[in-house]
Amino acid sequence: MSRSSHHERGDIGARFPKVDGAGKADGSGVYTDDLAFPRMLHAKLLRSPHAHARILNIDVSAAERLPGVIATLVGAEMPAKYGVIPWTHDEQALATDHVRFIGDEVACVAALDERTAEEALRLIRVDYEPLPALLSAEEALAHPEIKVNEKAKVGNITKEVKLEFGPVDEAIATAAAITRERYQYAGSTHAPIEPHCAVARVDGDGNLTVWSSTQIPHYVHRELARVLGLPPARVRVIQPLLGGAFGGKSDPFSLEFCVAKLALKTGRPVKILFTREEVFYAHRGRHPMAMDVTVALDAGGRISAVDNKILIDGGAYASFGLVTAYYAGQLLTGPYRFGTYRFDSKRMYTNKPPCGPKRGHGSVQPRFAFEVALDEAAEKLGIDPIEVRRRNFIGEDVETVNGQRITSNGFLKCLELVEQASGWKERHGKLGPGRGLGVAGSMYISGTAYPVYPNEMPQSGVLVKLDRSGRVAVFSGASDIGQGVNTLLCQIAAEELGCDPREVTVVAADTDLTPVDMGAYSSRVTFMNGLAAREACEKLARKLKAAASVRVGDEIELELGTVRGPRGSISFAEACQLAEAAEGAPLSATGGYRTQKLGGNYRGGTIGASPAYSFTAHVAEVEVDEETGIWKVTRIWAAHDCGKALNPTLVEGQIEGSVYMGAAEAQMEEMVYGKQGLLFGPSLLDYKIPTSLDTPLIDALIVESHDPNGPYGAKEAGEGPLHPAIPAIANAIHDACGIRLRELPFYPQRVLQLLQARVPGQERRTAC
Amino acid sequence: MSRSSHHERGDIGARFPKVDGAGKADGSGVYTDDLAFPRMLHAKLLRSPHAHARILNIDVSAAERLPGVIATLVGAEMPAKYGVIPWTHDEQALATDHVRFIGDEVACVAALDERTAEEALRLIRVDYEPLPALLSAEEALAHPEIKVNEKAKVGNITKEVKLEFGPVDEAIATAAAITRERYQYAGSTHAPIEPHCAVARVDGDGNLTVWSSTQIPHYVHRELARVLGLPPARVRVIQPLLGGAFGGKSDPFSLEFCVAKLALKTGRPVKILFTREEVFYAHRGRHPMAMDVTVALDAGGRISAVDNKILIDGGAYASFGLVTAYYAGQLLTGPYRFGTYRFDSKRMYTNKPPCGPKRGHGSVQPRFAFEVALDEAAEKLGIDPIEVRRRNFIGEDVETVNGQRITSNGFLKCLELVEQASGWKERHGKLGPGRGLGVAGSMYISGTAYPVYPNEMPQSGVLVKLDRSGRVAVFSGASDIGQGVNTLLCQIAAEELGCDPREVTVVAADTDLTPVDMGAYSSRVTFMNGLAAREACEKLARKLKAAASVRVGDEIELELGTVRGPRGSISFAEACQLAEAAEGAPLSATGGYRTQKLGGNYRGGTIGASPAYSFTAHVAEVEVDEETGIWKVTRIWAAHDCGKALNPTLVEGQIEGSVYMGAAEAQMEEMVYGKQGLLFGPSLLDYKIPTSLDTPLIDALIVESHDPNGPYGAKEAGEGPLHPAIPAIANAIHDACGIRLRELPFYPQRVLQLLQARVPGQERRTAC
Repeated sequence: MSRSSHHERGDIGARFPKVDGAGKADGSGVYTDDLAFPRMLHAKLLRSPHAHARILNIDVSAAERLPGVIATLVGAEMPAKYGVIPWTHDEQALATDHVRFIGDEVACVAALDERTAEEALRLIRVDYEPLPALLSAEEALAHPEIKVNEKAKVGNITKEVKLEFGPVDEAIATAAAITRERYQYAGSTHAPIEPHCAVARVDGDGNLTVWSSTQIPHYVHRELARVLGLPPARVRVIQPLLGGAFGGKSDPFSLEFCVAKLALKTGRPVKILFTREEVFYAHRGRHPMAMDVTVALDAGGRISAVDNKILIDGGAYASFGLVTAYYAGQLLTGPYRFGTYRFDSKRMYTNKPPCGPKRGHGSVQPRFAFEVALDEAAEKLGIDPIEVRRRNFIGEDVETVNGQRITSNGFLKCLELVEQASGWKERHGKLGPGRGLGVAGSMYISGTAYPVYPNEMPQSGVLVKLDRSGRVAVFSGASDIGQGVNTLLCQIAAEELGCDPREVTVVAADTDLTPVDMGAYSSRVTFMNGLAAREACEKLARKLKAAASVRVGDEIELELGTVRGPRGSISFAEACQLAEAAEGAPLSATGGYRTQKLGGNYRGGTIGASPAYSFTAHVAEVEVDEETGIWKVTRIWAAHDCGKALNPTLVEGQIEGSVYMGAAEAQMEEMVYGKQGLLFGPSLLDYKIPTSLDTPLIDALIVESHDPNGPYGAKEAGEGPLHPAIPAIANAIHDACGIRLRELPFYPQRVLQLLQARVPGQERRTAC
Repeated sequence: MSRSSHHERGDIGARFPKVDGAGKADGSGVYTDDLAFPRMLHAKLLRSPHAHARILNIDVSAAERLPGVIATLVGAEMPAKYGVIPWTHDEQALATDHVRFIGDEVACVAALDERTAEEALRLIRVDYEPLPALLSAEEALAHPEIKVNEKAKVGNITKEVKLEFGPVDEAIATAAAITRERYQYAGSTHAPIEPHCAVARVDGDGNLTVWSSTQIPHYVHRELARVLGLPPARVRVIQPLLGGAFGGKSDPFSLEFCVAKLALKTGRPVKILFTREEVFYAHRGRHPMAMDVTVALDAGGRISAVDNKILIDGGAYASFGLVTAYYAGQLLTGPYRFGTYRFDSKRMYTNKPPCGPKRGHGSVQPRFAFEVALDEAAEKLGIDPIEVRRRNFIGEDVETVNGQRITSNGFLKCLELVEQASGWKERHGKLGPGRGLGVAGSMYISGTAYPVYPNEMPQSGVLVKLDRSGRVAVFSGASDIGQGVNTLLCQIAAEELGCDPREVTVVAADTDLTPVDMGAYSSRVTFMNGLAAREACEKLARKLKAAASVRVGDEIELELGTVRGPRGSISFAEACQLAEAAEGAPLSATGGYRTQKLGGNYRGGTIGASPAYSFTAHVAEVEVDEETGIWKVTRIWAAHDCGKALNPTLVEGQIEGSVYMGAAEAQMEEMVYGKQGLLFGPSLLDYKIPTSLDTPLIDALIVESHDPNGPYGAKEAGEGPLHPAIPAIANAIHDACGIRLRELPFYPQRVLQLLQARVPGQERRTAC
């Protein structure tokens, strides 16, 4: 009953529909490419045809003479290097002397229309001196003498992190069971429906506005100012509606700098809309990783040691790669207690489009390897896959082996839910040939305790204003990239203030108008922005109550549109009026998320230290045709501990989207390159993503723990639920036909190869 | 020297260019009619062809059948009455049973394009029963049995105000000189370049947004909600750039209700753009007034009594007419001390387009009559026109005969300036036949102490937010209608915070995002909104100083972009960062203008009671061709006491615009009606307004008093400087050729008539 009233109310816990849903559905929503301004120019980027080359000369003169061309742009006009992480500035908006992958940006043309700009690109003459290209992490490691990116201090290493917690070798030496295998995780990309787009305009005072399909307006703001040499106060970045991001829009991109510089040069608005092909070159997707993983269990089935040597193929630029190297190692140490742990994580520069943060950044690959290895090690001891995970549960309010503080932890409940829902006990190991169940668990962060650049200011801020009509305005710097934070802001306002959530205006992600939020990455947004919003609303609720008490008495409750006290009730709008009269000024307040000083030094070992961790368990069910290797995942039960489900519908949506994306990587997604470094088929025809027919039935199961650090007890839900999908599928295939898939994606031919290599008796794994 | 640094700085007192100037000049500025949305409909209004009639039936069925017509609308669908003043709700968006002037709105059609909507109007059949029309205030008074508007309690009187201060008859009986004449002031209209336009859109949650070329978004917000039966929190009103208003856009108009209702009915965006003809029907311009004025001077030339009987022709609806009746009487009692004063002001409903507030609302007409009468009375005593005004100066920090509190008063300085600048002493009465100089003075309010609807909330509010980049955002409900308040908000921020005024974003007049401001009327905006802005900025400046003191020591000065202390200086942006870190949340503050409880009861005598009064003196120079009556005003010296000139360029612009508009009314402007009540020539071809060739040389002279109530000592500048132009011209024509013009406008044929009626010897007035 209380649930159904929640549904109508839209406060915390309600299944309140997304506030931007109608506009997205009826076409009235404005995306970046929907913007058009009088006299707007269209620009196009010239890209390198070489995976690696020196630029000897760029001649744009013929392009400039083409009728309809208004301006050209080369890298020398904005040579400053940039990058999302301050310590790895290694990109240029347009290359000046060195191109590093096929697709690297070299020059730009602004014309009256796109076709003319494209035609002009063909008139630009670039003289290259080709260099040997390094197309894998192994090659990059083997050839330090060939420098992909001079930012690398040693050879082609973007970043190496080696950390050891406890005597790993000692634990391995005394283990009851060990697996030691190599795992290969393929690179994949985000494939958002909306291609990257940016529009720039300069006003009469020389103030620059850039609209961009970005998920980090704050960083784009900083980097535009730095690269263009403008005071940050003269630059405004606005993120319109976004058609998918998944981490792929969390770097500053060449198009943002180019439209800005061209607008400054020409005095006219300028737009660049990437083609689908260009989205593939922009990439920043999942890093290919080669992982040599050792998992050791003691006689009781407890994880006594994990050792992981990780080689990461980073592509031509650093992007978030410094973080990737940390995350790949640091985020593995839950939901299980590790007796000891060691990792050596190395990210290499290679001559391919740069990899970056894709949903589940850095930890999806090691999670796959570890969960498969754990399965295999448990099998050696004859322990049921769910039992081994239950037995190693790290618990609540504990510290991981690498010093991360876990607060709430609903993992056991997640395991129990998927165990029951999937009929695990009755069905695991018993589904007959070619059918199987597999389980996997995972942990993920709810934001990092530290902003990407350290400072004493809040990582996230919200400003709330109340109108005497009862309308609430929420100004938030956070980026709604589909995860629904704007909707949650309305719900938080409704919860704290007792307003109608449909009477809340959210102004978001506009660096002139909204407070700073660091961006939509590391699953930090609802957690940190939500806490900031709650703080602002709490301040206002106190004012409303104090003013209303004169009329309705003390001990006031704020409910949907009504302010109720012992002496009667008034409307929310009336309470706003009383409070505004008492204040003598408009009612507003701000709230901030202040960086928690958890987990030691930023440059040290715990960059991953998060204020709270989410936990997930999946059981996957698969069918394998043992004649052909063709398999499909038919169903995934995914239970996710999101702390408190602020909006169960949105949490379920996040779980479903994550499971889909994880299953997709297991099934078919891969960035494939030719021998010259040319990306194979940069189109949605050639790059395969699952259609609805390729997608399993997904049971999104919410587990609510109450986290002491999160807003209303909430934790992340947008990335964690992706992780177990891949190992759960691998483990299910093992259950179905006894093979261990250690290389992504699980192409039928790979499956077939393993099936054919089976020794007799291995066909079917025996249930423990 | 300090002035030239001001010019570059843009803080208070600087000649800082208008912040919206570039966008208005280069075409990028967005006016209401520049808005277009997908699927937007265009609507047209059907208007009454009768000055007065009963509606028997409206049949829209044929119109609805026309291909391309999407919806029709009649008054029965939103019959609630409205009006800007809560006590005189007497308008309907569309008439239900009664039309009151030719042009009154009867029905509306929304179609795919304007042409189809217009065609559909011709298919609407309305059956009228014509009623006798009352086309002048005198007729309306003579025929109480014919009811123009049922809101009138007695006959056709909108409002009558009779007040007497001291024994007027006694003072008249003992006067040394008296004039007792009738004065006729013609109606005129605002003729803004931008016609009225409104666009409405309803979102998926049923929230209505109306963009309108209004100068009162807050009242439009209130009335839309009331008439449409929506919660105010579901209605948003946004005022885009405005192309002139002058009081003509300070009522809620039928088009705003019609686009809103049609958007609700059709689910599609709807626009109405008035034709120029429709702007004339919307009107709300200068009220025609007939004034029987008696001015009595004592032997010393002191004003011992003023008696004014005012009959006001209001048109078909009240508009601000309740206020007009007060202002016409109450605002005359400065800059001179009146021994006694009496007025009887009566506003009548008539069957013509409604009159309302035009620049100098209510007091321009009585000011003309009085200043001409004073001239004439002084002449009888042989006192120089400037001398009689100087001698009657009321002084500073005094109370007027009707209880209004005058604080600062720079009128004597104004008189002195125009006396000197015009060479008055050498030239008045000595310019030879057909040339002359005339003087006049006036006083005007800087907002009313009371909002139009009484409440305890601030009349104006501002919210200011600081970004860590140093960007300042100012959210203000005030309407920039060309007077430049948005520019002044930037200057106030620069003054208080030490930021660069070009690094301030102003978000204005959006009822969802900005605090409430009552609207751009009664010259209240910069005064009240400016005080609110200063208060908000002062709060933030304190935080900046406290945070910066850690770095630069105490005794901090905030200057253009720099925070300077005894131990060094940091940038404004750095100070914002320190303060945000100290606050742990985004930096913002609000300020409000709290209604001053001056001058007694609202319903009583002192509605005009203002927190501060501006003062003006003009000298006009004219040339009259005594053969033809053709005359021109060649130059006007206008000195205006605006308190502190916050931006001298804008003050001069306001003075020039006011002088232009006053001189225009003296020269040629008049709303002329035919015998059936049809407005003559509702177009800018037929309705004459002066071109630049008809405009005198204007010397805008700023007098700075420092008002204790105003922001930085400022008072109004946008309306006061209009008043003296008309009587100064009339008095100058008298100086030129001895005639007393008592009826507006001073058509050459009227001048010629008076010239021909002169008795010998009257040709030339003798200088005193």
